[in-house]
Amino acid sequence: MSPERFLARQDKLRSLLREAEVDAMLVTGVSNVSYLTGFSGDSSALLIGTSVRVLISDSRYQTQIAEECPGLEADIRTQKTKPHDQTAAVIAQARPGKLAVESHILTVSERTRIQEAIDKTDAGKGIEIKPLADTVEKLRQIKDDDEIAATRLAIRIAERAFVAMKATLTDDLTERQVAHELEHAMRRLGADRAAFEPIIAVGDHSAMPHYRPGERRIGESSFLLVDWGAALPSGYRSDLTRVFATGTVPSQLQELHGVVLKAQLAGIAAIRPGAKLKDVDSAARRVIEEAGYGEFFGHGLGHGIGLHIHEEPRLSSIAEGELQPGNIVTVEPGIYLPDFGGVRIEDDVLVTPDGHEVLSSLPKDLV
Amino acid sequence: MSPERFLARQDKLRSLLREAEVDAMLVTGVSNVSYLTGFSGDSSALLIGTSVRVLISDSRYQTQIAEECPGLEADIRTQKTKPHDQTAAVIAQARPGKLAVESHILTVSERTRIQEAIDKTDAGKGIEIKPLADTVEKLRQIKDDDEIAATRLAIRIAERAFVAMKATLTDDLTERQVAHELEHAMRRLGADRAAFEPIIAVGDHSAMPHYRPGERRIGESSFLLVDWGAALPSGYRSDLTRVFATGTVPSQLQELHGVVLKAQLAGIAAIRPGAKLKDVDSAARRVIEEAGYGEFFGHGLGHGIGLHIHEEPRLSSIAEGELQPGNIVTVEPGIYLPDFGGVRIEDDVLVTPDGHEVLSSLPKDLV
Repeated sequence: MSPERFLARQDKLRSLLREAEVDAMLVTGVSNVSYLTGFSGDSSALLIGTSVRVLISDSRYQTQIAEECPGLEADIRTQKTKPHDQTAAVIAQARPGKLAVESHILTVSERTRIQEAIDKTDAGKGIEIKPLADTVEKLRQIKDDDEIAATRLAIRIAERAFVAMKATLTDDLTERQVAHELEHAMRRLGADRAAFEPIIAVGDHSAMPHYRPGERRIGESSFLLVDWGAALPSGYRSDLTRVFATGTVPSQLQELHGVVLKAQLAGIAAIRPGAKLKDVDSAARRVIEEAGYGEFFGHGLGHGIGLHIHEEPRLSSIAEGELQPGNIVTVEPGIYLPDFGGVRIEDDVLVTPDGHEVLSSLPKDLV
Repeated sequence: MSPERFLARQDKLRSLLREAEVDAMLVTGVSNVSYLTGFSGDSSALLIGTSVRVLISDSRYQTQIAEECPGLEADIRTQKTKPHDQTAAVIAQARPGKLAVESHILTVSERTRIQEAIDKTDAGKGIEIKPLADTVEKLRQIKDDDEIAATRLAIRIAERAFVAMKATLTDDLTERQVAHELEHAMRRLGADRAAFEPIIAVGDHSAMPHYRPGERRIGESSFLLVDWGAALPSGYRSDLTRVFATGTVPSQLQELHGVVLKAQLAGIAAIRPGAKLKDVDSAARRVIEEAGYGEFFGHGLGHGIGLHIHEEPRLSSIAEGELQPGNIVTVEPGIYLPDFGGVRIEDDVLVTPDGHEVLSSLPKDLV
């Protein structure tokens, strides 16, 4: 990505900081630092405000920062300085009257250590620390062209790996083995790793929405739920779910599948700029409720994806807010019948200026 | 593991809580909850104290808790309750006068939310929240027999995968491909995943202690540094490093290798119960300093391994404390020459009642 991309993001954050009436923010979230600067390492913080922009890091990362963040000022710690003393010194030099910290990321101990280190500095007395949550995350939910392209690639890799996995699936493989094969195939295709631990659920294991793959073999039931995605080296990721037959499926599974598919299409159809998040959820939920399965759809309809696998906006019955162009969300209704099994169908959908585009393209048929 | 194992750990924690003069602790660290209860899920907290022991979780995990934690009381949230209201209600019912929270894990926002939710309850007024760091971690640094056996297995898997990787290594593979092959092999052998992203560093890339594998190919230099480990499904892990020739290595590399190996053996020889952590570090560091490379060994000698890849105790020049039987530590001195390359040799060592046992066994020769 071009350096201008990062400068534009930083300018947007500065506007949010002005709105929040703080002079600067200490960004400590690894993904947030990366989003704002392009730096791909960790253990580093960005101090950013009206009149300051400096990456606080250590000597391990000096070369990497010079390569990845041309033009960005960096304060490099040597081994003799403690991390929070370094952070405090950089803050004291910038002297922000009000300093925001990422309160949803910073631990209680880290906050205390930074406060104590600032108080020890000469300039420290005048600095007020203000907890501020989910600020960079507000920017991250609107994807720019580079991020949309990266997400398309992460989806394409996941889909190709799924096709390869399905083509070579045998009855004797365990859930865990299938999960590992899937990740291996995604990596061969350019992924850095799986976007999350793939859910490979044989038969009634699919009734648990967050099942972890175990030792059950594919041949032990007649259907399989696969929930997987790819993460690129840049961090962007995909998230998909399919259920398919590995034998003769019970007629009830076919019925569930028909209902979930109808609900998913209804949810997707409701996606456009300005649509209320809860209305998109209810467009899909209504279909499942009308079929009599409402109580078996126990989670929200979807969530944003990006550098994290779960981001804003959330599509759920209690979510506030509306969709905006540039959101990329999953649409993943499900029905889960204990001791029988579950069906979930999940695609990744981009909110466009005049509607939506389904970014994923795998067939959704059960058989 | 037997339920008695977990009860014993809980009793030890209760002793530490009494020493810290608190009535109960809200354990929120995922690995800490797992260590104390055997529960392998996440998004759950354990409230434990003199007269209370309850796992706070949600309906997704109800079945799993019953299976993994027989006899453990669980408070299961339904969808209509907010997580922090549930936590506050459980705390209010137990009414600890002083409640410790894991301040090195809990975020500033989480602490605020829990405080506010407690204050809303009737019993809440009398409860004082006390930040307490690294308490369960104190217990975790002494491994019991089950943990030692798990670590042995994690080492064995990593070593077998390394042998397989080395046997099939070709010049055209990239660092990233080797990393992925290594993880795939470890999984075939029973690992859940790599213990951390493997460091595969061709040639002068090895001069960066925290290098991330990239697109350089094996054949582009004459030596390779591999730092890798396996994580079991139970979470226990190994951590090893070897450097070996893939061509005709420069004589300076051979010299570095000889110094590092001598330093590593000196570090290992210093390991016994009661040895000061900083003395073990300096036993190895002295060898490197005397060879004139002191300034190129910029990190500590080693660290504990267990459910996390970096645990207490740390072997470093600023570490306080002594080794105790049951510690498992890495011993990994290195010399890193910018633009030339680095050598690090790492093994995993158990502190026994009368000395030490090197748990890993791969040859350390360069050629």
